[in-house]
Amino acid sequence: MGEFDLIRRHFAQPAQALLPGSQALLGIGDDCALLQPSPGKALAVSTDMLVEGRHFFPNVAPRALGHKALAVNLSDLAAMGARPLGFTLALALPQADEAWLCELSAGLLALAQAHHCPLVGGDTTRGPLNVCITVFGEVHAGAALRRDAAQAGDDLWVSGQPGEARLALEALWERPWAHASLTGPHGAHLRARLERPEPRLALGQALADLGLNSGRTLAALDVSDGLAGDLGHILHASGVGATVQESALPLSDALRALPPERALDCVMHGGDDYELLWCAPPDMRPAVEAAAHSAGTTAHRIGHIHREPGLFLLTADGERQTLAMRGFDHFST
Amino acid sequence: MGEFDLIRRHFAQPAQALLPGSQALLGIGDDCALLQPSPGKALAVSTDMLVEGRHFFPNVAPRALGHKALAVNLSDLAAMGARPLGFTLALALPQADEAWLCELSAGLLALAQAHHCPLVGGDTTRGPLNVCITVFGEVHAGAALRRDAAQAGDDLWVSGQPGEARLALEALWERPWAHASLTGPHGAHLRARLERPEPRLALGQALADLGLNSGRTLAALDVSDGLAGDLGHILHASGVGATVQESALPLSDALRALPPERALDCVMHGGDDYELLWCAPPDMRPAVEAAAHSAGTTAHRIGHIHREPGLFLLTADGERQTLAMRGFDHFST
Repeated sequence: MGEFDLIRRHFAQPAQALLPGSQALLGIGDDCALLQPSPGKALAVSTDMLVEGRHFFPNVAPRALGHKALAVNLSDLAAMGARPLGFTLALALPQADEAWLCELSAGLLALAQAHHCPLVGGDTTRGPLNVCITVFGEVHAGAALRRDAAQAGDDLWVSGQPGEARLALEALWERPWAHASLTGPHGAHLRARLERPEPRLALGQALADLGLNSGRTLAALDVSDGLAGDLGHILHASGVGATVQESALPLSDALRALPPERALDCVMHGGDDYELLWCAPPDMRPAVEAAAHSAGTTAHRIGHIHREPGLFLLTADGERQTLAMRGFDHFST
Repeated sequence: MGEFDLIRRHFAQPAQALLPGSQALLGIGDDCALLQPSPGKALAVSTDMLVEGRHFFPNVAPRALGHKALAVNLSDLAAMGARPLGFTLALALPQADEAWLCELSAGLLALAQAHHCPLVGGDTTRGPLNVCITVFGEVHAGAALRRDAAQAGDDLWVSGQPGEARLALEALWERPWAHASLTGPHGAHLRARLERPEPRLALGQALADLGLNSGRTLAALDVSDGLAGDLGHILHASGVGATVQESALPLSDALRALPPERALDCVMHGGDDYELLWCAPPDMRPAVEAAAHSAGTTAHRIGHIHREPGLFLLTADGERQTLAMRGFDHFST
C-alpha cells in the first residue's frame, strides 16, 4: 500500500467529512489546511512529539497511544483557555501495519470528535516510530491564561488528582513500593490515568472567561512534568514564590495506600498528570469552584502565591520546607 | 544541560525577540504560542516530518538540514498563496550536541528571518533524529491556490528548474550516469538545489492575488514528489487531464549534459524540487509572466489542461505518449 492510500484509508475520510460546526474550510488533501478563527480571537498553537521508549512503552496499545498523543496537545490548549479548532498529525512508522494504524486512528479520532477538533492535515513517512501533533485553538488574546500572570496574594489551585499517572508508571517499572497498585482495586483507574488522560478543556475555557469578565488575566499551565517543576515555570515567569500546604493536597485512595513520602513524591514530582494548575485572587473562590464543578472536575486550593521567591511546603506538622522545583527532564534523566 | 536550557540557548532568544512587524503575540515559553491572523483572512497550516536516512543523509550538514526542514514547509504555504505568520519546531535528538544544534538553529532561523516567519513554539525530546515543523500562514480564503481548481483550457506552468535536485541526489547515490554532475562546473549549484531549496513564497502570493483580482481561483501545488506525480494530484482533484510538451520543458545546462531520457526522468519524475506548478487561463499569460518576474523567478508554460483524463507527453517528434503519474512514494519504494 502506498503512502497516499495509507493516509486516505485511515485518516482522510473522517477529516474530509469534517465535524459539524467546524471552522476548517479545507482539510487533508491540499498543500495546506485552511482554518477560519472567529473574528477578534487569537490563534493558540502547540506542538508535542511522542517517541517510543520515552513517552510510551514499545508494546503500548495503539488506541491508547492515539488518545494520549492528542490529549497532551489538547491539554496545552486547555492551559491557555483556548477552544480547539483542529490539529495536524505527522507520523513516522517503521512499517505500514494496517491493524495498528486502524487502532491508532480510532483512539485519535474519538478524542478529536469529543472535543470538536478535526484532523486537518498531516504527513506520513517511514522511520522510527514518532507521533508529532500540532494543535490549533482560539482564545480572546486578553483572556488567555499565561504563565507570567501570577500575583502575590493569589490562591494556588490544582484540578482533579495529580500523582496517579506517576504511580501507574512506577508500577509498570515494577518498583516494589508501587507494584501492587496496578493489580489492586484501583488498577484499571490508575492505568487509564496514565494512558488516557482527559484534557481539562472546559475548565481552561471557564477560567479564561473568569479572567475576561473580571479584567484580571489568570496564570495557569497544565501539569505534564510534575506539579513542583511546572509550578516553578509560573513562579519564574511571574517573579513570585509559592507555599504549598501538604494537608490541602488531594490524595486518592490509591495514593493514600502508599507510604506517605511516596505519595507526596507522586503528587509533587510526578508527571503525565495533565491536570491544570492555576492562580486566582481569593475573591474568585466561589467562581473558581463553580467553574470546576460545571466543567465536571474538582478544584483543590493547595496553597498561595507570595512575593518571597522560592517554593515551600508547609507540612502537616507545621514545618516549612524548601521544595525542589524539579520535574521530569528528558535530557538530564 | 537540561531540556529547557537546551531550548532556551539555541531557539528561544531569537523567538522571544520576535521579528519586527510580526503577528505573534506570545512566543516560546508558555503552553501555547498566540498568533493574530489579519481580519478576514483564513489560516493556512502545513506540517512536514523529516527523518534521517529518508529525507536527508546521516552526515548532512546541520545548517543545511535546518534550512531545508523549514523550506519544505514554507513551500507548502507558497503553494497555497499564503503569507507566513510563524512556525513550531518539534525535535527528537539522539543526544544534546551543542555544536550541531547551534548550526541547525542558524540554518533554520536565517530562513525564518528572510521570510518574516518567527519560531513561536516547539518541543524537544530524546529519540532517533526527527525534525517536525508546522508552519502557519494567512491568505484570503477565496484566493487560496487549490488543487481542485484546474479547468480545461488552462495553461500549465512550472517555476524555475525542476529536476536538478533529483540529479544531485542520484549523483550522491553514485549512479554512473549522474556521478560526474556534482564534480563538474554545476556541482555547487546542484548541491544547493537539493540541500537549500528556496520556497517560492513571493510567486505563490502573486498568483493568489491574480486569482483574487480576476475572480478565478487558480490551481497550484509545490513539486515535492516529482512533477508528473504531483500534477496527478491536480488532475485527480480537478477531474481533468493534461498534456505536457517536451520541447517546452526547461532544461538547465546541468540537465542538458545528461542522456536525454535521464534528463526527462529528472524533470518529470524527480522530487525535492519545491518549484510551483500551476494552471491559469491563457488570457492571464502576460500577468503570470510579470508575477514570476517580480517574484525573482521564471515561469515556463509547459502544457495545457483538457477534459480528456490522463497525463500525456507530446514528444519533440510530435508523438503523444502516456505518462505515468508517479512520484516518490515513501512506502512503496
